Amino acid sequence: IADRDGDAIRRMLAPLHAADIADVLEQLTAGQQEGVATLAPDVFTGEVLAEIEPDTREVVMAYLDPSHLAAAIQELDSDDATEVVEELDPETRAAVLAEISEIDRQAVEQSLAFEDETAGRLMQREFVAAPEFWSVGHALDHMRASDDLPDKFHDLFVIDTGFRPVGEIPVCRLLSARRDVALSDLMEPPRILVDPETDQEEVAYLFQKYHLVSAPVVDSAGRLTGMLTLDDIVHVIQDENKEDMLALAGVNEAGLADTVVRSVRSRAPWLLVNLATAVLASGVIALFEGAISQVVALAVLMPIVASMGGNAGTQSLAVAVRSIAERDLTAANAMRVIWRELATGAVNGLIFAVVMGAVTILWFQDVALASVIAIAMVLNLACAGLSGILVPLGLVRAGADPAVASSVFVTTVTDVVGFLAFLGLATLVLL
Amino acid sequence: IADRDGDAIRRMLAPLHAADIADVLEQLTAGQQEGVATLAPDVFTGEVLAEIEPDTREVVMAYLDPSHLAAAIQELDSDDATEVVEELDPETRAAVLAEISEIDRQAVEQSLAFEDETAGRLMQREFVAAPEFWSVGHALDHMRASDDLPDKFHDLFVIDTGFRPVGEIPVCRLLSARRDVALSDLMEPPRILVDPETDQEEVAYLFQKYHLVSAPVVDSAGRLTGMLTLDDIVHVIQDENKEDMLALAGVNEAGLADTVVRSVRSRAPWLLVNLATAVLASGVIALFEGAISQVVALAVLMPIVASMGGNAGTQSLAVAVRSIAERDLTAANAMRVIWRELATGAVNGLIFAVVMGAVTILWFQDVALASVIAIAMVLNLACAGLSGILVPLGLVRAGADPAVASSVFVTTVTDVVGFLAFLGLATLVLL
Repeated sequence: IADRDGDAIRRMLAPLHAADIADVLEQLTAGQQEGVATLAPDVFTGEVLAEIEPDTREVVMAYLDPSHLAAAIQELDSDDATEVVEELDPETRAAVLAEISEIDRQAVEQSLAFEDETAGRLMQREFVAAPEFWSVGHALDHMRASDDLPDKFHDLFVIDTGFRPVGEIPVCRLLSARRDVALSDLMEPPRILVDPETDQEEVAYLFQKYHLVSAPVVDSAGRLTGMLTLDDIVHVIQDENKEDMLALAGVNEAGLADTVVRSVRSRAPWLLVNLATAVLASGVIALFEGAISQVVALAVLMPIVASMGGNAGTQSLAVAVRSIAERDLTAANAMRVIWRELATGAVNGLIFAVVMGAVTILWFQDVALASVIAIAMVLNLACAGLSGILVPLGLVRAGADPAVASSVFVTTVTDVVGFLAFLGLATLVLL
Repeated sequence: IADRDGDAIRRMLAPLHAADIADVLEQLTAGQQEGVATLAPDVFTGEVLAEIEPDTREVVMAYLDPSHLAAAIQELDSDDATEVVEELDPETRAAVLAEISEIDRQAVEQSLAFEDETAGRLMQREFVAAPEFWSVGHALDHMRASDDLPDKFHDLFVIDTGFRPVGEIPVCRLLSARRDVALSDLMEPPRILVDPETDQEEVAYLFQKYHLVSAPVVDSAGRLTGMLTLDDIVHVIQDENKEDMLALAGVNEAGLADTVVRSVRSRAPWLLVNLATAVLASGVIALFEGAISQVVALAVLMPIVASMGGNAGTQSLAVAVRSIAERDLTAANAMRVIWRELATGAVNGLIFAVVMGAVTILWFQDVALASVIAIAMVLNLACAGLSGILVPLGLVRAGADPAVASSVFVTTVTDVVGFLAFLGLATLVLL
């Protein structure tokens, strides 16, 4: 790139798979990415564009001209084409769409009409369908004669005269069937029919549950309009997992190419919320300034109670968020799980009450102080267990994401309860 | 179940898909699961056994007799059969294996010989392969005549005379090809050849990277011995994500059916580690008992500095662990990312130094105290950013899982630095 030698770049990348080219490009700085885009635009085939991370894609596409983009996009199935097009600025998007064929344009525009993170946005419009009265041989001959089959497909959808899916046949079963068998004898009813408005997380759950490799998407009249495939769903699963994990840690979004400004922007809001709750907890401490000035050991020990509560609450919360994501935690077993979390918190509280009581006696030779910290520990860890499960369940009931904001709620509870129980008891017992 | 009516149970479950039956069973108590297993053992077909969670499976299999289990297992492809068999106690396992056919038994035993969480354990031994000199028509005729094709397959593997995979053809492409085309003209070289000893996480990464739906597994001589399919990989992805998320929260493992005892056992160890680090942090506070007894406001404010550091560290850590899991964070860009995390921490530190400084002035009307907390905030958040990335990278370099134990390290750093910076500066400036 430093030599501004487009041919050398091409030669280097030519033998690689699109996914590997994408990996190489993502490791470059934005300046180097720009260099590749200007010196060797033809590196960016449709497949490479579909593979690279959105951040890198944004940088690169700014330097590719619309007609190159249009040609690249036209190679792609409509789901990948949509993914690439959705990130273009409105002006470039219009220029690009003007140069691609009528059918492809319509497909992309219709997909873009669906909300982000829905099945409609994710589906591809290329699929293979055959009427139910055809035989296997008829279907095979038709496929051999067709020149616009999707890149890959795993099921043949069988449709009725109203274009409604009435069955599906895995292609491997089609292969091993005799030519004279009727499709209707070979098909099984579709395991699921996906509404394009469905949230992608819901679809991902169904794919996993029923081990699907593809599923038909139908419009409001029940007509087959698209297909979802497992390899797209895998990305949804990864994205949702990433979202949950980052949300639990108080990060709005994160990408490798993020700049400092972007990282600050995605983290500062939650730090601000945390600051507010920390000040609240400090307010609780301030109520007991008198006690602390008399017994400084209280100041030394109080963070331990809060920290243990915070940890136990986070454990309980992570287990709950994960169970909700896997649809294991339902209304039917919620009571049992709530009870378990409370009991687990209390038992851990008892264990660490004994441990911390002993440490306190050794450290401060003060049995009363040890009793206070022991009782506060049990109370706070029981509250931690309870809030760790109730907060995410409450968020779900309120229609919110159980991972977002729940950490802050839980640690607020454990901080406040921890300081209040420890310092309050100390005031009653020691002073 | 209360009526001990096996027929009613059968009738109720009969119309459901195996995955739905599994869902219903998992919602029952262990006692009810036992009831179903004794009253209606035939509910537990091979498919249902493969679908239910390991915990439920353990309960149920204790009440099914070996010959029923053997029949159920024999229905399954070898990967699912292995999964079911591996959880049997040695005695039952021997009894079950004795009743299944020689070929199936060998397949299961060979799979069990591989370590847990490797490709060898995960693969199925049923696959479809054809020699490279065959034509499409020849392959199709052979498949139609064969009666032990795998349940599902997505690629035909093309092998040479040494049974080594030299190509793969997606079945959909086989369908649309003319009968007289040679397989060698249609095939593409296998994208990956999986060694059965490979860790499942590594395999999952390659599947995602190259959008694979299946991949060949080869033995040490390069001979085709098995096949991995994307629907199994999806479970690996979910398991690995779950592991990371729980590990970050300090939970060793978790299942919905866990009892209190099991939950305590999986969480107490990390709480103990946390207690040790919390006592360490308290030791730091104890160094400044004199300062605190003179200025009680220090005790009120010090948890804020530690809490903000802990939060910022957790954010940085979650982003790092996620990037490592996605193979985005490599040696090549580590320096850039370390720098970004340090800078992000410092910038957030500056922002919240200003905010917290203002809060302190309003609250305590003390500019010196406000300056102290502001400086401590910048220092602690910068350290938080740095430890959030260095700890997981260090764990990776040490060959450990970056998610396990890293939270504890990071919060220890932020607690100690937070208390030390705030109380130390206060001692210098205020006293």
